[in-house]
Amino acid sequence: MLKATVEVRLKRGVADPEGDNTLKALNLLGFSRVAAVRFIKVFEVDLEEEDEGKAEEMLETMCRKLLANPVIHEYSIHLLH
Amino acid sequence: MLKATVEVRLKRGVADPEGDNTLKALNLLGFSRVAAVRFIKVFEVDLEEEDEGKAEEMLETMCRKLLANPVIHEYSIHLLH
Repeated sequence: MLKATVEVRLKRGVADPEGDNTLKALNLLGFSRVAAVRFIKVFEVDLEEEDEGKAEEMLETMCRKLLANPVIHEYSIHLLH
Repeated sequence: MLKATVEVRLKRGVADPEGDNTLKALNLLGFSRVAAVRFIKVFEVDLEEEDEGKAEEMLETMCRKLLANPVIHEYSIHLLH
């Protein structure tokens, strides 16, 4: 069993409504020294696979097919040891 | 300027519909060796603050007031150097 995290973040220049709204809410709550907030999605995945190479390949395919939208997202895969 | 990430994850035992639905979709797409998926929210925050202690305190308060729901979430704060 291997564990991995897949981090999916918006590409630079793509609107980030969740981040922007969190920033507004924080400013309204009095946190005036917060300058920016970016929202990132992380999927923590358990794989029934021992081979790290195969796991990484599988995770790449998952990102391309489901987890990330290549038009707006960039993603990074981290195997946890 | 300090950067930090705040990781907000569901407590053990709390239903994770986003993780569960991602798992189902991956299985349907043929990724049968995916055993579990957990969904984690990460906020990347830019703070106009140089003092790390003050920044951490501010981030703690943000978590308690807005970013996390103590009933269902646990959170961790990481200052980026």
